[in-house]
Amino acid sequence: MIKKLLIANRGEIAVRIIRACRELGVESVAVFSDADRESLHVQLADEAYCIGPKASKDSYLNFTNIISVAKLTGCDALHPGYGFLAENADFAELCRECNIIFVGPTPEAIQKMGTKDVARETMKKANVPIVPGSKGIINSNEEAVELAGEIGYPVIIKATAGGGGKGIRVARTEEEMLKGISITQQEAMTAFGHPGVYIEKYIEDFRHVEIQVLADQHGNTIHLGERDCSIQRRLQKLLEETPSPALDGEIRKEMGDAAVKAAKAVAYTGAGTVEFIYDYRNRKFYFMEMNTRIQVEHPVTEMVTGVDLIKAQIKVASGEKLGLTQEEVSFNGWAIECRINAENPAKNFMPSPGKINMYLPPGGLGVRIDSAAYPGYSIPPYYDSMIAKVITYGSSREEAISRMKRALAEFVVEGVHTTIPFHLKLLSHEKFVEGNFNTKFLEIYDIMAEE
Amino acid sequence: MIKKLLIANRGEIAVRIIRACRELGVESVAVFSDADRESLHVQLADEAYCIGPKASKDSYLNFTNIISVAKLTGCDALHPGYGFLAENADFAELCRECNIIFVGPTPEAIQKMGTKDVARETMKKANVPIVPGSKGIINSNEEAVELAGEIGYPVIIKATAGGGGKGIRVARTEEEMLKGISITQQEAMTAFGHPGVYIEKYIEDFRHVEIQVLADQHGNTIHLGERDCSIQRRLQKLLEETPSPALDGEIRKEMGDAAVKAAKAVAYTGAGTVEFIYDYRNRKFYFMEMNTRIQVEHPVTEMVTGVDLIKAQIKVASGEKLGLTQEEVSFNGWAIECRINAENPAKNFMPSPGKINMYLPPGGLGVRIDSAAYPGYSIPPYYDSMIAKVITYGSSREEAISRMKRALAEFVVEGVHTTIPFHLKLLSHEKFVEGNFNTKFLEIYDIMAEE
Repeated sequence: MIKKLLIANRGEIAVRIIRACRELGVESVAVFSDADRESLHVQLADEAYCIGPKASKDSYLNFTNIISVAKLTGCDALHPGYGFLAENADFAELCRECNIIFVGPTPEAIQKMGTKDVARETMKKANVPIVPGSKGIINSNEEAVELAGEIGYPVIIKATAGGGGKGIRVARTEEEMLKGISITQQEAMTAFGHPGVYIEKYIEDFRHVEIQVLADQHGNTIHLGERDCSIQRRLQKLLEETPSPALDGEIRKEMGDAAVKAAKAVAYTGAGTVEFIYDYRNRKFYFMEMNTRIQVEHPVTEMVTGVDLIKAQIKVASGEKLGLTQEEVSFNGWAIECRINAENPAKNFMPSPGKINMYLPPGGLGVRIDSAAYPGYSIPPYYDSMIAKVITYGSSREEAISRMKRALAEFVVEGVHTTIPFHLKLLSHEKFVEGNFNTKFLEIYDIMAEE
Repeated sequence: MIKKLLIANRGEIAVRIIRACRELGVESVAVFSDADRESLHVQLADEAYCIGPKASKDSYLNFTNIISVAKLTGCDALHPGYGFLAENADFAELCRECNIIFVGPTPEAIQKMGTKDVARETMKKANVPIVPGSKGIINSNEEAVELAGEIGYPVIIKATAGGGGKGIRVARTEEEMLKGISITQQEAMTAFGHPGVYIEKYIEDFRHVEIQVLADQHGNTIHLGERDCSIQRRLQKLLEETPSPALDGEIRKEMGDAAVKAAKAVAYTGAGTVEFIYDYRNRKFYFMEMNTRIQVEHPVTEMVTGVDLIKAQIKVASGEKLGLTQEEVSFNGWAIECRINAENPAKNFMPSPGKINMYLPPGGLGVRIDSAAYPGYSIPPYYDSMIAKVITYGSSREEAISRMKRALAEFVVEGVHTTIPFHLKLLSHEKFVEGNFNTKFLEIYDIMAEE
């Protein structure tokens, strides 16, 4: 078993990982930037070390400083959390070279899934449904025109090295497409140092449904059901739930099986998420991408399956077997997560960093809080704006929603604006309550403007 | 369905009930004494009214003021919580006369279970095992001596009107018994206005195991498993868990069945608890008493069954059917509750009321907090000393314990002493970890003095 773990992250996910370490009896080492000296993860870890100034590139992305702390403190493992270095194959490789267990998949798996055209081809070979589109990179305008003619417009142009909503463009005509390819190539070259783009059929209306997978180093791979993350604003997820109100048992099973195939195709180990585009009108789903890390929204899966995903990551990275077969995974009730950010939803979600004067999270039955906030904590403006994740659990979707509404209504955060008012409106919105929405929901409905 | 509910209580249980109301869409009315103006239940309820000065007898026990607020605010129901008026048959009767639904059993059921000798006889008729002892009140020394000769010493002398550890005395010889009867009768006359006493066989070593029952007004009665409350200090429960480490499937089933029989024998409605003496050495259990109210430790049952007991109480009091059969009740995992009180465990649990300067409850997976505390809250010295109930849930007892340890270790309460250090020691105690303890555990082991 891993004995001492460095957590190469900050905020709520660092706290989450420290908690798992405590429960497993694993020593924890936190790292922090100059801006995070007063952070909760620094206070909760067994040890904590500064790794650089406030800029992420000099601290949370600083390979040398992080690895040095790990070696100097005698850590035998490192957990990257999400964001920062979590999907950096070079960093995972460096850990391996330094004889530090990277709590995550192999550098090879990260690499394969991180390169979009390679991932697409790998999925195709593994019989995981992919959106119709080009085989690899587009090499000429003629090739693009011919392919678009086959799959039909609209199409989407994607930079192979893109991500997080960058390097993506939709085209509805040949003219738009050719122009789009050219611009995206230039952008991709500038942003990612790699000009390659490919094209796919653009699915207009879909739900974002993803499957949590978990695999050990002994060939056992299972899935833990889906999460519906269709409530997004500019590709940022705001609310996630499981199960998805859009899936029936048949699609759920097919999607779960496909996710396991996807993970096996890259010899995946640890916790990962296979994201799908779910074309609910045609009851068809397509591989979108695989996130080779723990995700922000992992708690909803934990609530309905009872599996502690962070502990599972640490155990699997230690070489333990899953100890859980697909048939043994049981799903109970409904869970929803709301991301409470320091943003002003009435002013276009403008970031609202600053000092939290008063802080009292909600409690009671079926309410879970994952947070690094405390009374008097100042949210630094340099990183994400997360204050807390509020997760509610209920025996039904209706109960999970009513519980979330009462939890958010009693959540006290003073000193900064928060997205609580947005979530309260969303949770009462007729279409949301019906479960009738897709990823365009927040483009179609101006939640904050509605009465 | 009940539309507007008065909560005739304070502290965490008032908050708990307000939360259930919010989730059900029931309006809530809080009441408070002068000492509780700044309390969280006052802030969270839809409406709140002062019902008198700080002394309980003038406020939380003030029939007239409470009923007046209920009538004046148009409440159709009243929830008594636990303590105060929760098991007062006269008050329940007054509610009925005033056409206010009392969220609890009928006055008749409260009365029958509240009078110990009547409860004993009722249980005997219903074939619920009772400790061998006298049929009703002891009328003469000769009767007592003869009975004690039959059942054997030691015996326990109990005032029929007693409770909460008062009016109870153990006797190991005839002489002790006769003296004890006389003293107990005098005490009972003074304290309860009723001199009646009865005697029972004294079980030396037992575990306190209780069964949660739930019954609707349509004749459906189920149980929701047991809670082990053997960790007590001077008859005050400090830690509760479910399932009990001491029961096997056979005893568990028998005890559950007995509890349902007990409830049915008094036509019980709502949530109630049948407490048993579990003589684990002989694998025999005996009826101790029935608590005709919700209990402090109800959350552990909610965690493993998924049933929201307060919502169930409100629904059943509204006339709804249970909608859950005994066969449909499922039990998952393990739950533990630690009562965190403002007391100094290093100084004989001396009460430590005062201002909580800094307050940050623990969070994360499997941690539930039921509390009425907040940063800056002053705990008044007039009522109980509860700060918070910390409930942890895990897939196994081991996980629930490790989670509780990490939760308590991160719980920040500054300004008053708390029982957190006691619980941390208890949770690491070899005998506790083994599940090997009875109600004398804290008499035998001086937890705070041990290294």
